[in-house]
Amino acid sequence: MAGSLYVVSTPIGNLDDMTVRALNTLKSVGLVAAEDTRRTGLLLRHFGIATPTTSLHEHNETEKLPALLRKLSGGVDIALVSDAGTPIVCDPGQRLISAAIQQGIRVVPIPGASAVMAALAASGYSADEFVFAGFAPSRSKDRKLWLVRVSQDPRAIVFFETPHRITKTLADMAEILVDRPITIARELTKLHEEVVRTTARLATLVQIAERGEFTIVLAPYQVVTPQPDSVDDATLNAYFYRMTEFEGLPRRAALVSTAEKFGLSPNELYARLERFKASGPP
Amino acid sequence: MAGSLYVVSTPIGNLDDMTVRALNTLKSVGLVAAEDTRRTGLLLRHFGIATPTTSLHEHNETEKLPALLRKLSGGVDIALVSDAGTPIVCDPGQRLISAAIQQGIRVVPIPGASAVMAALAASGYSADEFVFAGFAPSRSKDRKLWLVRVSQDPRAIVFFETPHRITKTLADMAEILVDRPITIARELTKLHEEVVRTTARLATLVQIAERGEFTIVLAPYQVVTPQPDSVDDATLNAYFYRMTEFEGLPRRAALVSTAEKFGLSPNELYARLERFKASGPP
Repeated sequence: MAGSLYVVSTPIGNLDDMTVRALNTLKSVGLVAAEDTRRTGLLLRHFGIATPTTSLHEHNETEKLPALLRKLSGGVDIALVSDAGTPIVCDPGQRLISAAIQQGIRVVPIPGASAVMAALAASGYSADEFVFAGFAPSRSKDRKLWLVRVSQDPRAIVFFETPHRITKTLADMAEILVDRPITIARELTKLHEEVVRTTARLATLVQIAERGEFTIVLAPYQVVTPQPDSVDDATLNAYFYRMTEFEGLPRRAALVSTAEKFGLSPNELYARLERFKASGPP
Repeated sequence: MAGSLYVVSTPIGNLDDMTVRALNTLKSVGLVAAEDTRRTGLLLRHFGIATPTTSLHEHNETEKLPALLRKLSGGVDIALVSDAGTPIVCDPGQRLISAAIQQGIRVVPIPGASAVMAALAASGYSADEFVFAGFAPSRSKDRKLWLVRVSQDPRAIVFFETPHRITKTLADMAEILVDRPITIARELTKLHEEVVRTTARLATLVQIAERGEFTIVLAPYQVVTPQPDSVDDATLNAYFYRMTEFEGLPRRAALVSTAEKFGLSPNELYARLERFKASGPP
């Protein structure tokens, strides 16, 4: 009989965030496929588990797959783990899961700690719906465009950032998200866990250590259809500018779309954009 | 000194999915605020925990808040739990967290099982980014529009459905999502855990028991910019129809936007839509 592939969540910092079932699974399987065998070795030793490990990361995934699938077909149970949290979220191993499914191997998730869920819980924001947006891009120009795109979504948004880029990313967020409430979580579940709840603009004034992993949550917001009279020319211009520059819409489509958004006719909008232009730079 | 509010994740089905730290927290706090005290009582008794519980659900949240906040300020540690998984995701308790934060109470997430993460792990889909879309709407008309909107997102999408609506929802998904790969997870982590990986269209042919909680995952897809020559008139018409009927765009904006999408001029697109109309119903 073929073995099973267990997709096991491991702690994101605090070793006591291990579940009973995850421990039993790591003990009972024949092999643990780990992103980093040294890190997983520490975890296993901490809990007195002697199961052999093998490395499975993005650079050896392709060559390791056939042997792992052969083991599974031959009856060996395998546990897949990443360095922290649930494998497949920003982790290698997804291809092994996918290939195992295609071969009819039973895939069993063993849930546990997740930085995404922990950060949402710590934020206090309503998370009936939310978006996990992955890692923020590393280049500032890409990151700004990404922040513009990601932040148009009114749902709670979660993403990860590394310690050496956090200061730059917070500066970009201040510029683009302005007054949107955000939560910055650092070293979640660890001894020096820190959760700062502020706004994007005020976050740059907060003293935050550039150490540990960061999980950032953007607060959800209510979408309100604005009244044309309550919107000034500068806002119309900014929205139109965003449509053409960031969304890449042709000018005519942006005009129609902006007019629709604010309950104006395209002609009215055009007149107001011209009036704004004529008013000159402030 | 003020107490702390612990936001504790509990199992989603299998009691062994409890973490060491969640157990220690439930043991050491002065009070457990639970969505359903009977369900949480079963969990606590299973682990021999005698901490008193109090109910906190959507119908009594407002009246219970002041007393809970007084206790926290007075030095009592409180653990917040829901029936299953991480509180605040489709659960009450978010207002307690939010109010505690405003009063400067320390809020500590204790991560653990989550149906969202477990379903993603079981799906085998790439989940570098994903969307949690909550519960599918209960009325068929709302649900269809919701599926159209939700499924335009190329990221992996996770949502919940109840057993008494699953058959209808799968029928709606077959109609709207057609060949998009989906994973249907039922009774995750429980004895009768079932994970079906298929497409929206084929899912209606699968025999699925209408029992237990369902978590559905839509596979992510690659966004490919189509070549105008490779797109037939019917596709252009369908896209244009979607823009006007579902997205609510005025005809002119829909024309410009559809033309842009397929690399056509608005005039070319208009001519092709007219040609399609003239070809008559099949």
